[in-house]
Amino acid sequence: MPKPLNIGMIGYGFMGRAHTNGYKRVNDFFDLPYRPVLKAACARDKEKVQAFADNWGYESIETDWRKLLERKDIDAVDVCVPNNLHKEICLAAAAAGKMILCEKPLAMNTAEGEEMCQAVEKAGVANTVWYNYRRVPAVTMAKQLIDEGRLGKVFHYRANFLQDWTINADLPQGGNALWRLDAAAAGSGVTGDLLAHCIDTAIWLNGSITDVSAMTETFIKERTHTATGKKQKVTIDDACSFMCHFGNGSLGLFESTRYARGHKALYTLEVNGEKASLKWDLHDLHRLQYFDYSDEGKLRGWKSIHVSDGDQPYMNKWWVPGLQIGYEHSFVHQVADFLASLGKGTPCHPTFRDALETQKVCDAVLDSAASRSWKNV
Amino acid sequence: MPKPLNIGMIGYGFMGRAHTNGYKRVNDFFDLPYRPVLKAACARDKEKVQAFADNWGYESIETDWRKLLERKDIDAVDVCVPNNLHKEICLAAAAAGKMILCEKPLAMNTAEGEEMCQAVEKAGVANTVWYNYRRVPAVTMAKQLIDEGRLGKVFHYRANFLQDWTINADLPQGGNALWRLDAAAAGSGVTGDLLAHCIDTAIWLNGSITDVSAMTETFIKERTHTATGKKQKVTIDDACSFMCHFGNGSLGLFESTRYARGHKALYTLEVNGEKASLKWDLHDLHRLQYFDYSDEGKLRGWKSIHVSDGDQPYMNKWWVPGLQIGYEHSFVHQVADFLASLGKGTPCHPTFRDALETQKVCDAVLDSAASRSWKNV
Amino acid sequence: MPKPLNIGMIGYGFMGRAHTNGYKRVNDFFDLPYRPVLKAACARDKEKVQAFADNWGYESIETDWRKLLERKDIDAVDVCVPNNLHKEICLAAAAAGKMILCEKPLAMNTAEGEEMCQAVEKAGVANTVWYNYRRVPAVTMAKQLIDEGRLGKVFHYRANFLQDWTINADLPQGGNALWRLDAAAAGSGVTGDLLAHCIDTAIWLNGSITDVSAMTETFIKERTHTATGKKQKVTIDDACSFMCHFGNGSLGLFESTRYARGHKALYTLEVNGEKASLKWDLHDLHRLQYFDYSDEGKLRGWKSIHVSDGDQPYMNKWWVPGLQIGYEHSFVHQVADFLASLGKGTPCHPTFRDALETQKVCDAVLDSAASRSWKNV
Amino acid sequence: MPKPLNIGMIGYGFMGRAHTNGYKRVNDFFDLPYRPVLKAACARDKEKVQAFADNWGYESIETDWRKLLERKDIDAVDVCVPNNLHKEICLAAAAAGKMILCEKPLAMNTAEGEEMCQAVEKAGVANTVWYNYRRVPAVTMAKQLIDEGRLGKVFHYRANFLQDWTINADLPQGGNALWRLDAAAAGSGVTGDLLAHCIDTAIWLNGSITDVSAMTETFIKERTHTATGKKQKVTIDDACSFMCHFGNGSLGLFESTRYARGHKALYTLEVNGEKASLKWDLHDLHRLQYFDYSDEGKLRGWKSIHVSDGDQPYMNKWWVPGLQIGYEHSFVHQVADFLASLGKGTPCHPTFRDALETQKVCDAVLDSAASRSWKNV
Repeated sequence: MPKPLNIGMIGYGFMGRAHTNGYKRVNDFFDLPYRPVLKAACARDKEKVQAFADNWGYESIETDWRKLLERKDIDAVDVCVPNNLHKEICLAAAAAGKMILCEKPLAMNTAEGEEMCQAVEKAGVANTVWYNYRRVPAVTMAKQLIDEGRLGKVFHYRANFLQDWTINADLPQGGNALWRLDAAAAGSGVTGDLLAHCIDTAIWLNGSITDVSAMTETFIKERTHTATGKKQKVTIDDACSFMCHFGNGSLGLFESTRYARGHKALYTLEVNGEKASLKWDLHDLHRLQYFDYSDEGKLRGWKSIHVSDGDQPYMNKWWVPGLQIGYEHSFVHQVADFLASLGKGTPCHPTFRDALETQKVCDAVLDSAASRSWKNV
Repeated sequence: MPKPLNIGMIGYGFMGRAHTNGYKRVNDFFDLPYRPVLKAACARDKEKVQAFADNWGYESIETDWRKLLERKDIDAVDVCVPNNLHKEICLAAAAAGKMILCEKPLAMNTAEGEEMCQAVEKAGVANTVWYNYRRVPAVTMAKQLIDEGRLGKVFHYRANFLQDWTINADLPQGGNALWRLDAAAAGSGVTGDLLAHCIDTAIWLNGSITDVSAMTETFIKERTHTATGKKQKVTIDDACSFMCHFGNGSLGLFESTRYARGHKALYTLEVNGEKASLKWDLHDLHRLQYFDYSDEGKLRGWKSIHVSDGDQPYMNKWWVPGLQIGYEHSFVHQVADFLASLGKGTPCHPTFRDALETQKVCDAVLDSAASRSWKNV
Repeated sequence: MPKPLNIGMIGYGFMGRAHTNGYKRVNDFFDLPYRPVLKAACARDKEKVQAFADNWGYESIETDWRKLLERKDIDAVDVCVPNNLHKEICLAAAAAGKMILCEKPLAMNTAEGEEMCQAVEKAGVANTVWYNYRRVPAVTMAKQLIDEGRLGKVFHYRANFLQDWTINADLPQGGNALWRLDAAAAGSGVTGDLLAHCIDTAIWLNGSITDVSAMTETFIKERTHTATGKKQKVTIDDACSFMCHFGNGSLGLFESTRYARGHKALYTLEVNGEKASLKWDLHDLHRLQYFDYSDEGKLRGWKSIHVSDGDQPYMNKWWVPGLQIGYEHSFVHQVADFLASLGKGTPCHPTFRDALETQKVCDAVLDSAASRSWKNV
Repeated sequence: MPKPLNIGMIGYGFMGRAHTNGYKRVNDFFDLPYRPVLKAACARDKEKVQAFADNWGYESIETDWRKLLERKDIDAVDVCVPNNLHKEICLAAAAAGKMILCEKPLAMNTAEGEEMCQAVEKAGVANTVWYNYRRVPAVTMAKQLIDEGRLGKVFHYRANFLQDWTINADLPQGGNALWRLDAAAAGSGVTGDLLAHCIDTAIWLNGSITDVSAMTETFIKERTHTATGKKQKVTIDDACSFMCHFGNGSLGLFESTRYARGHKALYTLEVNGEKASLKWDLHDLHRLQYFDYSDEGKLRGWKSIHVSDGDQPYMNKWWVPGLQIGYEHSFVHQVADFLASLGKGTPCHPTFRDALETQKVCDAVLDSAASRSWKNV
């Protein structure tokens, strides 16, 4: 029987729901040494956090995260709050000896992130960051194929994360729902919100990034701020592109925007190697596109692999071939891997330290865009 | 607070898992008058049903479904056993006043189905049949578009359900895992297993079927039977196609097989109307293809609608635009609709009576194939 | 230097243009023993045929096909007239010793077709029928793959030819432009016009068809006839579907219609074999979809092969990899193969005799639909 | 009757074939004031140019382009030679009063291009550059949609041109076949060969580019040179990416490479506007993808428009709806437009002057990559 692992959830937004769903479902499908217990949900707004706790079955609530950290019955905290609060909470959680599952991006910047890494490492607490796309089965399979050497020398890596939900100039910025549009809470715009995902996957699949040249843009210059009710300068980046070199000699090209009309949440990635290439996109996340140059000449083509067979990553836990899973399953997988790692006493990647690498690239990207020059990471 | 509704699950196979998952998840996402409680799981093999109950959190087990039906603490039974057991259990369950959620197809044949309908109607118990594809959001949206009159007069309806998992001649028939290959347990092969889904959706979207001309084939004539260990004649249909007329004057074309190499579980449907057409396929179940003749001429084309927005069926319960759900959600939706219907005192379609219509078509199809002649439904 | 081969073209419609384009272009791309010379164009309407001849560069015109056949300077005639005229012209042409390239379908029915076969065989004149889709490179490659045994035993063959251009009830029937809607000129509706293509390819790829069960429909019962200006009964089939058995034991399913809103000219075909499957569609004719079960398990998927490489059929004659050709090239290829066959003294398939097989299936299909019963071919 | 226009073709390579095919076919399909006459083909290698002339029907040959320019019976010259010869030939042709159809890119660099523009403008001779992709019907339709204001304010423009034919390190550089790999003949690698196409289309669709930040790479550092038989440094760019700003405030992202395994000649472009977005790719050139935000909310999606209807650009000249044309037709269209412009006395875009804008961007891109800094155009 799996041992209970008491979870304290800080935050109750979109990610709070997605993670909680992961905790609740994981043991139905995975054979694990631990079983998450929804011990407490924590947020400042008592009414809202109570409603959240009732909805999802958290046993108790807290309205002050410090109180949560003081509780002896909490083993792990899940940090699902705006980015500007990550550092303070994580430092305190580490000091309190709690395991930490922190929403991405790790921090507001590299300096904060470095402090956080040192804190968890010093405290020796298990830690992971929710770069969930690594655990979409098709993406995990991409990693396997690359690690097996099937692509050979890599020449190109490219990724996009395209959305279109902020095109309307009447959309306000800030507040609970729209803190992602307020740099004071989010640190940056699409760079930390979207590109960070692309960068995490890229480093995982293709290794370190050495230098970058970036361009950002803020298309809507002023938006009403929810907090003040007044038009204020928009301080986030609406769009960000960058070119880069990877340590393995390949070239990278990245783009993210919230102004790509027609794309809801189109995260795509492609890797071109000497022997094979692969592609994936979030709008059809259960498929991996694969081109293998070792195929017989006249029969070469891009193969659309429906990743739903038992011999494909994670899929032996779910249904039967042909029946696709969705977005939320990536979180279930991360919980499963976290719990399995805990049992084995190994890190669950991406750790804070892994996520710091992405933070460094994000910082270099923002620096490069501001200075219109190449920056080393 | 939703009231508890105690579930007794009979069976623990693939469908037992899929339904249970629906019961466990539904209240996290839907605001409902009832909350399913996993009261008991029932199956003959004590060890296996206990493992299933432990895995999913059923509070107790039974090894005799008659015992389960005697229990006062069971409100509803879920019948997830081979087709040849549906009738007996459902008749007894109705007599015991239990609500019934019965796996499809309803019965071995129309006569059985008619008896079952009369039983539940006489008993006045809530009943539904798990034709889950009606509640894939893209399919539900197809129904909405048709009901809104957007297609106009319908000319053609076509559907396929293509699999490839029985091509290997070494695959045995019968037993727990492979009862679907044994006509004694399943009633028929692909007709009841796959075409029944296609027919249910077709009747729902396009109205009644009036006559059929069918063709069946058994490619592998003998397979080792799990029960006897001997080569026995294969009595199921490996493949079945039929042409038909609908009551609305449109033509239908249906095909199912387990010998379509390359298709894991490809359920596709297409409706061609005077004003618009639509298509859907299970391998990309979160998309609806739509062609609208009222579009400006030179811009006409098939639109690939990523059904993941809040204004699309069921999707306001889940994540955010662009983030797809999967196969299993169709069961969550059916549970949600069943519980909501219960609160309102209305039927949850497809009821046994609805499912009987599909049974009639299946029988006509099998008759037609056997007699090589057109058969009225 | 290729020898001249003098062509007499009878007709100037859509097919007249497509064939003529083939004659004019073939020697630019193919190294051949013959070079078509556009000697004469023939049609009843002098003004129109003159305009056609001027447009395309025919050296002369005739307004009576009998005159054309009398000319010594004509080596081959191309019969591009409504189906009801094929027989008479072909019999006379054979008698006059002309080679014949006849537009499909071969004849109004099997009896006519048989007569025509005997005529050309008796006369010993080269003959071919314009079932051009055999020579779309992706389709030709499908044939190669099948002939190489890559699919293994075939279980299923399915084909559709879907159009939507006759949905408008105001469209008249008959006359020059719309003779395809008049059974007196066309013999049948979609069966001879569209299904004939599907059947020809099917027999070529998968062997003979032994029996059929068909269904036809005429959705619009009356249309104004161009000849009389009056509403007259529509005598063609607007839609036709059929099931069949092939001689190799596989099952066939065919459908054609001009009422499939959204499909301009969607000819699709799919073959499912034990070891591999393939698909093709005319709307993306330069691609072949291929699934190979011998691929490594977790990497199996449908491959989209962009048929534009030099090692793919016909493609070494055209441009460079990645640059697609179109519909018209299938006719260039047929001319090329006809001329090459001429040089070698071998038949150019499909010959009249080959095309007669398709005629027989069409007749059986129409018989079956009329009698609502299975018919042997 | 169209008047003859005598063509002198200089070169006989891939482009020589593609252009010649355009000249030969155009009057069969387009009603035009002029008719190209294949008067002379010119190249240094007498045997090869004679074979080319024989193949395509050029009336005569020349082995010195100066001789060709002296001929009175030549109205227009088509310059299909390596880039390093464009300037000298074009200056002489202009001086000789010949119309010029010059293969792209215009020149080795902006300075050369400027000289060439001044020459043709001073001479007053008709001139055009073969940026043929403007005349793929789907791309032309994109231009129409943008000009009609359907996209609204544009936020993003992105284009790729991905190939994979030089990955093999054993491929030599230089000589007749592989001059594109030799910077001395080609000026640059993928920048002038592939990106130039992307830039031309981009400027046409989205207006001027104001500044760029680029990155180039040469993956294979040395290749045997065909001329010397020795390993020599590779001087071209194998890959080139750049970010840019357009004059209209939108952001651009471009990439080209010959190391993208799996892509034969994948030119893709996408434009994201406030009201609509569109996408196109060369591997399925007969389709335009279109997303229209003014569509009803729940029905929004990307539409795949099969550009083969008579109300779509150029398509009323070809076959019937659903029947696709191919790559080569873009050249036929350019010839048609050139001849029509000639009749009207208007320029045929892109003129030399238009093409110079692309040259300026290419130069800025190469400068930027060399200096690792942003460059104004």
